[in-house]
Amino acid sequence: MKKLIKGATVLTLGAEAPFVGDILIDGSRIADIQPAINAEADMVIHGEGMAAMPGLINAHQHTPMSLLRGFSDDLKLMDWLDKKMLPAEARMTPEDMYWGAKLAMAEMIKSGTTAFADMYIHMNEIAIAVEEVGMRASLTRGLVFLEDDGGRRMLEAMDLIRRWSGKAEGRITTMLGPHSPYTVPPQPFREVIALAEQENIPLHTHLAETKEEVRMIREKHNQTPTEYLYQLGLFEKAHVLLAHGVHLNRRDIGYLKGMRGGVSHNPVSNLKLGCGIAPITDMTEQGITVGLGTDGAGSAATLDMFEEIRAAAWLQKLDYGDPTKLPAKEALRMATAGSAELLHIGHDTGTLEIGKKADIILIDLRKPHLQPHHDLYSLLSYCANGADVDTTIVNGNVLMQGRRLLTIDEDELFKQVSIRAKRIVDGV
Amino acid sequence: MKKLIKGATVLTLGAEAPFVGDILIDGSRIADIQPAINAEADMVIHGEGMAAMPGLINAHQHTPMSLLRGFSDDLKLMDWLDKKMLPAEARMTPEDMYWGAKLAMAEMIKSGTTAFADMYIHMNEIAIAVEEVGMRASLTRGLVFLEDDGGRRMLEAMDLIRRWSGKAEGRITTMLGPHSPYTVPPQPFREVIALAEQENIPLHTHLAETKEEVRMIREKHNQTPTEYLYQLGLFEKAHVLLAHGVHLNRRDIGYLKGMRGGVSHNPVSNLKLGCGIAPITDMTEQGITVGLGTDGAGSAATLDMFEEIRAAAWLQKLDYGDPTKLPAKEALRMATAGSAELLHIGHDTGTLEIGKKADIILIDLRKPHLQPHHDLYSLLSYCANGADVDTTIVNGNVLMQGRRLLTIDEDELFKQVSIRAKRIVDGV
Repeated sequence: MKKLIKGATVLTLGAEAPFVGDILIDGSRIADIQPAINAEADMVIHGEGMAAMPGLINAHQHTPMSLLRGFSDDLKLMDWLDKKMLPAEARMTPEDMYWGAKLAMAEMIKSGTTAFADMYIHMNEIAIAVEEVGMRASLTRGLVFLEDDGGRRMLEAMDLIRRWSGKAEGRITTMLGPHSPYTVPPQPFREVIALAEQENIPLHTHLAETKEEVRMIREKHNQTPTEYLYQLGLFEKAHVLLAHGVHLNRRDIGYLKGMRGGVSHNPVSNLKLGCGIAPITDMTEQGITVGLGTDGAGSAATLDMFEEIRAAAWLQKLDYGDPTKLPAKEALRMATAGSAELLHIGHDTGTLEIGKKADIILIDLRKPHLQPHHDLYSLLSYCANGADVDTTIVNGNVLMQGRRLLTIDEDELFKQVSIRAKRIVDGV
Repeated sequence: MKKLIKGATVLTLGAEAPFVGDILIDGSRIADIQPAINAEADMVIHGEGMAAMPGLINAHQHTPMSLLRGFSDDLKLMDWLDKKMLPAEARMTPEDMYWGAKLAMAEMIKSGTTAFADMYIHMNEIAIAVEEVGMRASLTRGLVFLEDDGGRRMLEAMDLIRRWSGKAEGRITTMLGPHSPYTVPPQPFREVIALAEQENIPLHTHLAETKEEVRMIREKHNQTPTEYLYQLGLFEKAHVLLAHGVHLNRRDIGYLKGMRGGVSHNPVSNLKLGCGIAPITDMTEQGITVGLGTDGAGSAATLDMFEEIRAAAWLQKLDYGDPTKLPAKEALRMATAGSAELLHIGHDTGTLEIGKKADIILIDLRKPHLQPHHDLYSLLSYCANGADVDTTIVNGNVLMQGRRLLTIDEDELFKQVSIRAKRIVDGV
């Protein structure tokens, strides 16, 4: 099946300057990008007045937490976690996970996100939702090793990988997910790394989100969290997706130099929880790949990646007192090519290129806040928001057109979400 | 003419908790707010599934700069000003001002802003645009006294005040606008303050936006910018709208204590230009009123006040390393009641109350990113954006319904804006 996008302003987010042109999709891949394509197509998508760019990629998510959006904002981190989040999460059923993931995907598709990295529990239900909805996802069973569970979590993690890796027309990939330096002791962490190296599985973990974490690891291991992971051999033995990386010193950044994978910067969550500013300019100067993510909606509240793009740019300008830091196009590239590299799908996604997967979004520029057109990168970074996305295409399939979701029934979704959210927080 | 909003979730932003109810508008004012109103009305507005709240008030704006949106982002402040903004502004005609202001108003109405404070030149054209479009505005002719202009600017300022104050069904109010401590020397500043005191005119000025300004005033007057204004008698003699207030020390904040008016916090512009974090928690603890503004789209890029609401909350949490700082409802109140106080229209706007002006917005909550409904204040502060506003009412008149602007022709606006923006930056 061939689809032809006509007359859009194309931002490949590669080396090319923006130009008005057409994009031909053949099956799941981009077959051609040219100022004018004369080809037969089964479907023509009118892109006039719109910008076409690579789909945004959310590099760090806990999708079912969308059911807990706004449930515990403006609280201290430990109050948030212990008094609100953990008791609520404990009441979530596998079916809740499915609907929470679906709610997150509805929001992501409507705000131009085409792929995401997810770490949670009951991942089988999330995988089913991903398969149905049509998004691209890297799925990870989070592994906490604070008490002996007889190997149950590890079995579930490997079951997810064996059952789902490469499934759903190749849209689903998987990772191993040792949760963090403060929830995984050295011995189990070494075993997970050894398994990852042996079976060539990428890893997804949290790193140095809070000062508290740094103090905890210092007390326990007399190391920074980054040193702790480095000395376990993590960075040399596997492709690693590191979430947060807020509290890294100069030496820590040195340990990451040359790593495969990179750091998911989640500025909105970091701001909202008062965590701090991740030193991503220092990281990129050392050649470390930085992508962008939202973290779960339980903390970040929104999954709109345009918010992350501008928050990332703002924070570097604030941190350096210098408005030239992290300019618009670089911030957009973090949310696309950068995140793609972290998810280990950079060969197939992250830029608009012939031969890559057709993960494309169309942004309607015919809005007062997107006029006039002095600089499209600036407009998309600093002015656009998720609601400006008109069309979302993943793997060559149209998941939203004219703001209408084509693979999710919104009415049914809202009904399910409302009932389940109430039950989870009321505890009955 | 009576209008009845039925079945909305009403957030008065006063002391009441949110409740589902009706709002009756009689002419330009709110006649009743109740869980159920049985009254005849000429027009019924269906509010089911929507939140009704006071219109957002943008306390610091330079509307015509919307024509320069994205024209000079990611540049050093002085490069931004000298190489790009000033030459472009010099090429703007009075008709450009009119269309720039109209573009800004189109964006504001579409993102739920009902009133704004504007400081620029050619204010007569902006007043005409405000009168036509139907918004509420406090208009100020910016006064720079760096060279002798034979009193021309001052004449224009007084002409604006005499001609437009109280006009457009009372929607237009005016202020005097001595531009800033670094562009107005002591003698003319004293004269403006004396005039303001004598004729009971409020003042709108910039204060301590950058470190550079603090250094400049220190060198020239051996004072902080705030001391400079304080010693001129500004805070005791007039109602003052202070824009920015980023670089204030503890003593500076003491000088502001007890002032009439307050500080317009413009966090997005401050972030984007790398200026710093204004100490607004310290200000509110001293009883100083804080409102929110965007500054011009030339720096902030967007006029979406929802962005300012969450940026304000984020920055206090970041600054203190404490997520409990500036909670959601307080941030919403800054953008409504706080800004209203700054514009000197707090008696008539800023909360939903019987007898106040009907400046009301309806926000459509039937969106994935606004589900589920654990806490509406959180949803509106951290998740909503301008595009979620369905209906905007000012002075009892509907300016937008179902996202369609009723007093602005968008096609004509975009045509004018595109031609004019190109001419202004190309210089031909």
